[in-house]
Amino acid sequence: MSNPPVSLLVFDIFGTVVDWHGSIVREVSALYPQVDADAFALAWRAGYQPAMQRVRGGEIGFVRLDELHRGILDDILPRFGLAHLGEAERAQLNRVWHRLNPWPDSAAGLTRLKRRFTISTLSNGNIGLLTNMAKRGGLPWDCVLSAEVFRAYKPDPRVYLGAAETFGLSPAEVMMVAAHHEDLAAARDCGLATAYIERPLEFGANNVKDVSPVAANGWHARDLLHLADQLGC
Amino acid sequence: MSNPPVSLLVFDIFGTVVDWHGSIVREVSALYPQVDADAFALAWRAGYQPAMQRVRGGEIGFVRLDELHRGILDDILPRFGLAHLGEAERAQLNRVWHRLNPWPDSAAGLTRLKRRFTISTLSNGNIGLLTNMAKRGGLPWDCVLSAEVFRAYKPDPRVYLGAAETFGLSPAEVMMVAAHHEDLAAARDCGLATAYIERPLEFGANNVKDVSPVAANGWHARDLLHLADQLGC
Repeated sequence: MSNPPVSLLVFDIFGTVVDWHGSIVREVSALYPQVDADAFALAWRAGYQPAMQRVRGGEIGFVRLDELHRGILDDILPRFGLAHLGEAERAQLNRVWHRLNPWPDSAAGLTRLKRRFTISTLSNGNIGLLTNMAKRGGLPWDCVLSAEVFRAYKPDPRVYLGAAETFGLSPAEVMMVAAHHEDLAAARDCGLATAYIERPLEFGANNVKDVSPVAANGWHARDLLHLADQLGC
Repeated sequence: MSNPPVSLLVFDIFGTVVDWHGSIVREVSALYPQVDADAFALAWRAGYQPAMQRVRGGEIGFVRLDELHRGILDDILPRFGLAHLGEAERAQLNRVWHRLNPWPDSAAGLTRLKRRFTISTLSNGNIGLLTNMAKRGGLPWDCVLSAEVFRAYKPDPRVYLGAAETFGLSPAEVMMVAAHHEDLAAARDCGLATAYIERPLEFGANNVKDVSPVAANGWHARDLLHLADQLGC
């Protein structure tokens, strides 16, 4: 396959660039050793799509992901024996999403990709969350694009088309990079190029993910360094 | 004065971080040696506030600065004997705003300030323009905030308050850095801290700007390195 004239790479973040499961497990285990941190991380993330669906379906107006994360957290705390947590502890715990650790290859891979492409987040995470995470984890974004800019959550087409329009590019000049086939399928439907990144441990070692290739993706890479290899960076 | 608990520095860009006048003069002189490039740069910029005022006053909906710049360009070209320029030349010339050169201290100053603060653009320039400019000029932003995010042009309070809200901060935790007293006054009215940067040559050597201090600003610096000195970075 010959390379399309892609100049902008946009990245999914949770699971693709950072390890949300491992980061939450580490923090929750340290703070609340009595809690099943693996189950806790999975429960918190399980509320993610339903929460965004309330926005996508028009039930509520656009609210930042920080707020959706907090609502899910408040819902699940009693299930894990943490109903007693006060406001300050909840707020501090909710900010764990700003402190997620990059996968080991992410900073180095992005640094290589950045030499040849403009690299931006394109995440359902809010701008402040993404910026704090990048600063802490050394992720060298050229730009921080978010659902918050377009006031719509992926896989809403406005997010993918909005990214291209923001840079005055046609969709074919933009590549979506993600570890999730639904995200890539929606991007492809909008005309973007797509690259799948294997993240078999996204849901932890007890829930290894199937990372088989899907032919519709133009690229399939083990990690961001492997993607940089394939893109000649 | 004791330092306020500022954690986010937001920067005006045109004139404060990059030299729009000098950059436009250089490019126009090279392309069209018969044109008075100094007058051309000043005429283009003179259309800037009136164009944004059409958005601020509600005459037209929000449009990106790229589009406003293009409208002004089309207006002034006949005045400079350039009415014959075709679409491709006009589009290429309009992109000069993406190619403005940083002042000599900007990249080094921002790199120092970034060690201690989160640093973001807060410009009327659109996101794509700001990102392209930063990539070319080596400006190490943590985040690219723009009028485009808030769909309002400075000095609309929504821009300054929006920057604080994006990061979950109170206005007093944000400092606006600019070479323009109107911008700083509007930020201050919203509760932001303010730093004035002297840019006496913003309008070129033929129009040296008065850079006298205004007492209401918490900080007054010759350039971004001097601001870094004052902020202990």
